[in-house]
Amino acid sequence: MGEAFDAVEVIITKRDGGVLSDPQIDWVVDAYTRGVVADEQMAALAMAILLNGMSREEIVRWTAAMIASGERMDFSALSRPTADKHSTGGVGDKITLPLAPLVAACGVAVPQLSGRGLGHTGGTLDKLEAVPGWRASLSNEEMMRQLEDVGAVICAAGSGLAPADKKLYALRDVTGTVEAIPLIASSIMSKKIAEGTGSLVLDVKVGTGAFMKDEARARELAETMVALGTDAGVRTVALLTDMSTPLGRTAGNALEVRESVEVLAGGGPEDVVELTLALAREMLAGAGRDDVDPADKLADGSAMDAWRAMISAQGGDPSAELPTARHTQVVTAPASGVVTRLDAMAVGLAAWRLGAGRASQGEPVQAGAGVEIHARPGESVTEGQPLLTLHTDDEPRFARALASLEGGFDITADDGGPAYRPAPLVIDRVTAR
Amino acid sequence: MGEAFDAVEVIITKRDGGVLSDPQIDWVVDAYTRGVVADEQMAALAMAILLNGMSREEIVRWTAAMIASGERMDFSALSRPTADKHSTGGVGDKITLPLAPLVAACGVAVPQLSGRGLGHTGGTLDKLEAVPGWRASLSNEEMMRQLEDVGAVICAAGSGLAPADKKLYALRDVTGTVEAIPLIASSIMSKKIAEGTGSLVLDVKVGTGAFMKDEARARELAETMVALGTDAGVRTVALLTDMSTPLGRTAGNALEVRESVEVLAGGGPEDVVELTLALAREMLAGAGRDDVDPADKLADGSAMDAWRAMISAQGGDPSAELPTARHTQVVTAPASGVVTRLDAMAVGLAAWRLGAGRASQGEPVQAGAGVEIHARPGESVTEGQPLLTLHTDDEPRFARALASLEGGFDITADDGGPAYRPAPLVIDRVTAR
Repeated sequence: MGEAFDAVEVIITKRDGGVLSDPQIDWVVDAYTRGVVADEQMAALAMAILLNGMSREEIVRWTAAMIASGERMDFSALSRPTADKHSTGGVGDKITLPLAPLVAACGVAVPQLSGRGLGHTGGTLDKLEAVPGWRASLSNEEMMRQLEDVGAVICAAGSGLAPADKKLYALRDVTGTVEAIPLIASSIMSKKIAEGTGSLVLDVKVGTGAFMKDEARARELAETMVALGTDAGVRTVALLTDMSTPLGRTAGNALEVRESVEVLAGGGPEDVVELTLALAREMLAGAGRDDVDPADKLADGSAMDAWRAMISAQGGDPSAELPTARHTQVVTAPASGVVTRLDAMAVGLAAWRLGAGRASQGEPVQAGAGVEIHARPGESVTEGQPLLTLHTDDEPRFARALASLEGGFDITADDGGPAYRPAPLVIDRVTAR
Repeated sequence: MGEAFDAVEVIITKRDGGVLSDPQIDWVVDAYTRGVVADEQMAALAMAILLNGMSREEIVRWTAAMIASGERMDFSALSRPTADKHSTGGVGDKITLPLAPLVAACGVAVPQLSGRGLGHTGGTLDKLEAVPGWRASLSNEEMMRQLEDVGAVICAAGSGLAPADKKLYALRDVTGTVEAIPLIASSIMSKKIAEGTGSLVLDVKVGTGAFMKDEARARELAETMVALGTDAGVRTVALLTDMSTPLGRTAGNALEVRESVEVLAGGGPEDVVELTLALAREMLAGAGRDDVDPADKLADGSAMDAWRAMISAQGGDPSAELPTARHTQVVTAPASGVVTRLDAMAVGLAAWRLGAGRASQGEPVQAGAGVEIHARPGESVTEGQPLLTLHTDDEPRFARALASLEGGFDITADDGGPAYRPAPLVIDRVTAR
C-alpha cells in the first residue's frame, strides 16, 4: 500500500544492534501515529531500543520525528523572552509553583505545559487544582494572552503537541519500556521543543525517590536532553539534584500549594527556597536576564503578586482557603536522636496511598491528602514527638500508608550509630559540550 | 479483576535479565490466550526473551503452559507404536512425503500434523495439495482411523492443539521476534508433545537455506528441543543436516511430489534417499522397531503401496497426472566446468517468487511452479547446457526469480579455482544427555 518501509525490518535492525536510518525513523514514528505500525510492533521496537540503545544521532532524529507528528507553538510575538523548566519528577517537588511566578516577576515569560501525576510522584496540575476554581485547560490564545499579561502560565498540554509521544508514552507504560533513556529523553524534549520555549532548564532528579536511582544514568539522561535541546536551538541546561529525601516539608496537593505560598511570602523550607532560586537563576541566564536577582523578587513581594495574578487568570481564588483532608494520623518518633534518613520513595508511596496520587490514568485525586514532615534529616527529635502527619479523606488508607513508611526513616541516638551527613541538593550542572 | 500477576512486572523481570517463576509463566501464557495480556505486552516480552534468553527450566515450563492451553491427542489405543518427524524447514525439503509411508510400511504409525509454507521454504500441505483431490483437513476420528488402516497420515493441525502457540506465532511473525531459540523450541515442541506421538525425530537444518545459518545456533536449538521432548516422555532425537544446497533436484509443489514418488519407486536423487533412510532409521529406533531395514521397504514396493493408500484415504488420486506450470524458462551454464556451489536460499527465493510459495498467510500457491535442478554441486556442465529450469504460470515472475539466482551458483573450470568439496549431509546426531 505504498509504505516506504516494513515494520519488521525496522524492528530487526534495532534488535540486531544496528543503527536506524533517518528515513526509517521518520517512517516508523509517522506510521505508528497513523496506526499503520501496530502497537505490538512498536512495543517490540521499544523493548529493542531499551535493551540495545540508540546513538545520539538516532535520538535526535527520533525526537524530530515526534515533533513533526504535531503542531509547534511560537512565542516569538511576545514582548519578553521565554524560559521553561522540566523536572523528571520527585517527591514533594512543588518547585514549579513558586518558580513560574518568580521568574515572571523577573521579566521572563514562563510557558509551563504540565502533566498530571501517575505513581508516587505528584503532578503539578493536580497540585494547582487544589486551589478552588483554578482550571488547567486553556486555548492557545488564552495561553498567549496570559503570558503577555501575567508572564506565567501553568496549564495542560493540548492534544496537538507531539501526538506521537502521547501514543507512545501510553504504550510504554503498559509494556515495561518506560525506562529507556532514548525514549525518556525524546519524550520530554519533543514536547518542550514543540512548545517553543526559547530556553529550558532541566531538573534531573537522582536518588531513591527519583526515576533514576543512580547518578550515572541520571547524568546520561541529562546530557542526552541537553544535547537534544541545544541541537534544536533551545538554550538548555540541566541540574542534577538530590531526590533521596523529599523536597520541603510536604508531599500532597493542597499541602504543597500551602508550602509554595510560604516560599513566595519569603519563608518556606530552606531546600525548597534553595532549589527554586537555583533554577530561577538558570532560567534567567538562559533568557539573557542574569542581571536580575530572583531573591529580591521573593523579598519584595513581586513574586507573590505574579502568583496571585497567575492563579486568578485561570479562574482560581488565591485568597480562598485550601481544602484539608477529613482525617489525620500522627507518626511519632520511636526514639530520641537525630533524623539521619527520611526516604523519598517511602514518603512518596505513603502520600500516593493516602490519595494524593492515582493508580491509573483518569482517576480523581484527593486535594487534601498527603504527608506533612515535622522533622527532616539533620533535625533532632525526642521519643514520642510527632515525626510525620498523614492526611486522607478515607481512614482505611492509613494502614497501607503506614506500611510503606516502615523502614523509611532512621533516627540515630546522639551517643552512637552513623552521624547525619548532609548531601548537597544540587549535585552538578550539565551544559552543552 | 482477580488476576494473579501484573503483565508489566513479568515483562520487567525478563527485561532486567531475571528468571520468570513457574507461576509467572503459567499465568502469562494463559492470560495471553484469554486476551488479558495484550498483544503489545506479549510483543515486548517476546523481544526481551529474544535478547535476554531463557533458562532450560523456563523453556520447559513455557512449553508446558502452551500445551496446557489446548487439547492433547492420544494414540495409545492404536495397535502399533507411533513416530513423528519435524523439520525446521529447508529448500526442496520434500522428505516427509516419502518418509511417512516408508515408516508406515515398516510397521510404525506416523501421525504427521503439518503446516503450510510461508517464505522461501515450502510447506508439506502445499506440496500434497498438488495431488488432484487430496485434502488436508481431517477430523480426529478420521485421522485415528487412517492411522490404524494405512499407518500414515499427513494432515493440517486442528485449531484445538496449543492455541497459545498459534496466537503467539502470528504475533512473532509481525514483531521481529521469530528468531528466539526458546520461542522456536517451545513452539515446535508444544505442538509435537500435544499431538501425542511416542517418539520424535527432529531434522534441524543448518546453512544458507535454513532458518539457522550457523551450526552453533542450530545445535543449541536441537539440544533444547531434544531435552524438551525427553522431559515430556517423548523419545526424541535430532539430526543436524546440511541446508546450504537444495535437497534433491526440485523445489516446488508438484515438482517435489513427482520426485518423492521417484524415491518411493526405488529411484530419485541420492541425497533425498540418504536423508529419508537416515530419518526413517531414527524413527524406527525411537519406536522400538530397529529390526526393520527401511531400504528393503523401498526396494520391495511396500512403501509405494503405503503412499498410494495414504493419498487415496484423503481423497487424492495417486495415479492422476500432476499439474504442470504454463511457462518454463531454462537457465544455461555460463561456462564449462564443475558446479561447486548452488545456494539453497537463492533457489528457495526463486521458487517462491515463481509462485510455489506465498508472501502472506492465506494466499494461494501455484501447484506447478518451482525450480528444476539439472546439475547439482559436484556435477560437470558444458557452457550453454541447461543448469536450471524455472516453472511458473505467470511469465512476468521470471525476471524476479532470475534476479534472486544471481550469484547463487559457482562453476569452476577444470583447470583452476577452488575444487568442489562435498560436505556431509548429516552433520551430527543430538541425543538426550
